Amino acid sequence: MNEVAITGYGITNFNSEIVPIHEKLFEATKKLFDNTKNITNKEIDAVLISSNDNAKYLAAIISELMGIKPKIAHSVESLCSSGTNAIITGIAYIISGIANNVLIIGGDLHNSPGKVLDWDKSRGKFKHPIFWASIFSKFYKRKFNVKDEDLAMISVKNHRFALDNPFAYSKKSYSVYEVLNSKKITDDIRLLECSKPCTGAAAILLTNRSISKKFCENPIKVKGFGQKTTSASFTKNFETGILQSVIESAQIAYNNAKITSKEIDVCEIHDAFTVCEALILEALHIAEKGKGAKFAKNLFNSEERKVNPRGGLIGAGHALGATGIAQTIEITQQLQKIAGKRQLENANIGLIQNMSAAATSSSVLILEN
Amino acid sequence: MNEVAITGYGITNFNSEIVPIHEKLFEATKKLFDNTKNITNKEIDAVLISSNDNAKYLAAIISELMGIKPKIAHSVESLCSSGTNAIITGIAYIISGIANNVLIIGGDLHNSPGKVLDWDKSRGKFKHPIFWASIFSKFYKRKFNVKDEDLAMISVKNHRFALDNPFAYSKKSYSVYEVLNSKKITDDIRLLECSKPCTGAAAILLTNRSISKKFCENPIKVKGFGQKTTSASFTKNFETGILQSVIESAQIAYNNAKITSKEIDVCEIHDAFTVCEALILEALHIAEKGKGAKFAKNLFNSEERKVNPRGGLIGAGHALGATGIAQTIEITQQLQKIAGKRQLENANIGLIQNMSAAATSSSVLILEN
Repeated sequence: MNEVAITGYGITNFNSEIVPIHEKLFEATKKLFDNTKNITNKEIDAVLISSNDNAKYLAAIISELMGIKPKIAHSVESLCSSGTNAIITGIAYIISGIANNVLIIGGDLHNSPGKVLDWDKSRGKFKHPIFWASIFSKFYKRKFNVKDEDLAMISVKNHRFALDNPFAYSKKSYSVYEVLNSKKITDDIRLLECSKPCTGAAAILLTNRSISKKFCENPIKVKGFGQKTTSASFTKNFETGILQSVIESAQIAYNNAKITSKEIDVCEIHDAFTVCEALILEALHIAEKGKGAKFAKNLFNSEERKVNPRGGLIGAGHALGATGIAQTIEITQQLQKIAGKRQLENANIGLIQNMSAAATSSSVLILEN
Repeated sequence: MNEVAITGYGITNFNSEIVPIHEKLFEATKKLFDNTKNITNKEIDAVLISSNDNAKYLAAIISELMGIKPKIAHSVESLCSSGTNAIITGIAYIISGIANNVLIIGGDLHNSPGKVLDWDKSRGKFKHPIFWASIFSKFYKRKFNVKDEDLAMISVKNHRFALDNPFAYSKKSYSVYEVLNSKKITDDIRLLECSKPCTGAAAILLTNRSISKKFCENPIKVKGFGQKTTSASFTKNFETGILQSVIESAQIAYNNAKITSKEIDVCEIHDAFTVCEALILEALHIAEKGKGAKFAKNLFNSEERKVNPRGGLIGAGHALGATGIAQTIEITQQLQKIAGKRQLENANIGLIQNMSAAATSSSVLILEN
């Protein structure tokens, strides 16, 4: 069975530009080629685009711009986790022997049509994701006696970490006081507790591990992966604050990688809102039930960058189709020990968790150096 | 290495309804479940949607409607060949061992955003696909001394064959005279020589061949497949009338299946316009160079249904994201010998060819009973 390695990547600034989506996707791809030794466009067997943009035929367009004539070329969409959906498709192509090199490019604009959940009729007029997050927050605070300050600390941490990420949307750190006094959007969520939909793109190269040294001195192995969709709408299969899709996708990935959560040195997780980081850490069995917020706070106080070292979605910004790929690039750099100021000591096994629509679906990847 | 079989399918009428895309996708999926013995929603590991519709998160939505909680769920888009792109992704999941059962559902509405090639700036104002088809027609007629009547016969044949396809858009047969006297849209193409963008959906179930008998008495084996993207825009890599992506995708598929074109008993090919059927038959090496139109005409005169037995895109209609799947269903039924009035004798190996945007990309599947 073929194994898969990450052999190259490129990423753009995350900002609020409005430009053709093609331009951002091209920029990330060009950076990948600039950064990846020996790779030629002839060696790319598949080009996948992850995006919520309504533009069509993007994989063929970016291929043409780059002079690539791939066998496989198409777009993948699954809202905020389009990126990891595309990566796992690429993994399947390599495992199955259909491709040796798969180029995956994700991106969206800050006004992406994927950011409002128009299709979820059960939400009535509450179509913005903040409404489910608000319900989750209220539940979490009540059930586990967590304070607003505890959740706010997750925002403080992620904005602070983002300062060391040159591509991050946020360029400023905030105090707990500032987070708690930022614009109140619902009873339970303030503006600085939300990830910011932004413009950005990220590209990654997956390679059959047996030939990966040709393109990369330190290729990072894909050790495991898992996915789960439990429903589409908020009100189906809904036990408040239990991220069932995250639990199941992580379990599949841990089994697949033959490890437990204890072996994870560093992770990038989908903090769409502060409460998500707490709940996801618990669903991944990295933090104990009800202790996710405290876990994140302790990390911050000890300046340990185990969780969301690039600043998470709250600090780095959320360029929907780019997010899962940007997360994967961060973990790759951590395991390659080239994450600069963000570098965590002894990072050998890392995890990426990416999800959509009130955690109705989730993907988990596990990487190893 | 796991092998893949087709174990179930469902298809809707192709017509001009305007309904939510979800409704058509659901209808095809429900028919698949109604027609497929023993399959339960718990056994579906992956749900892929092929569509050009701008609606998001369709795979999760259709999964929820069907009570499926898949591991993998996302949409695939590559214009008119979205269907075969999704099928080949599903094949990769099964070969790689990630999934045992993959449900693929494709569909579009007749006003799909995929039907105008807005992104191809090299076309200037000539964004409708008919303009490249018109150039191809003029070239083909001049180079090989083919007459308007010869190409018109392809339309006559495909409209005639569609009469025996209960799901076809067209319900009427036409004479050569009627085709030649239908509305002239360009110098070289008349209305009845064009496929009709329409509303429709089709669903197919792919299964690990080792367990396929559980769901189907006569599962059809996927014997080979190939894909190629040569460019995105009309003017790049363009040698008039040479369908390079079709030639290369077919070659990959023939090699993969270890057969030659001589062994193909029946095929469904992407006759977006009459000239396409001729050019594709030649690119597949089923007809000799310059003889594609004559080949199709002879088939019609001898009432042999080797090419586009369900009426092709011209007779059956072109519901973009559904087309590659509808083609695959037809070949499956032919190999299962249950195609009714459309049945070809001795159909044991069949081919599907599906393409996008002036044949800048193409997919080929080869099936065997």
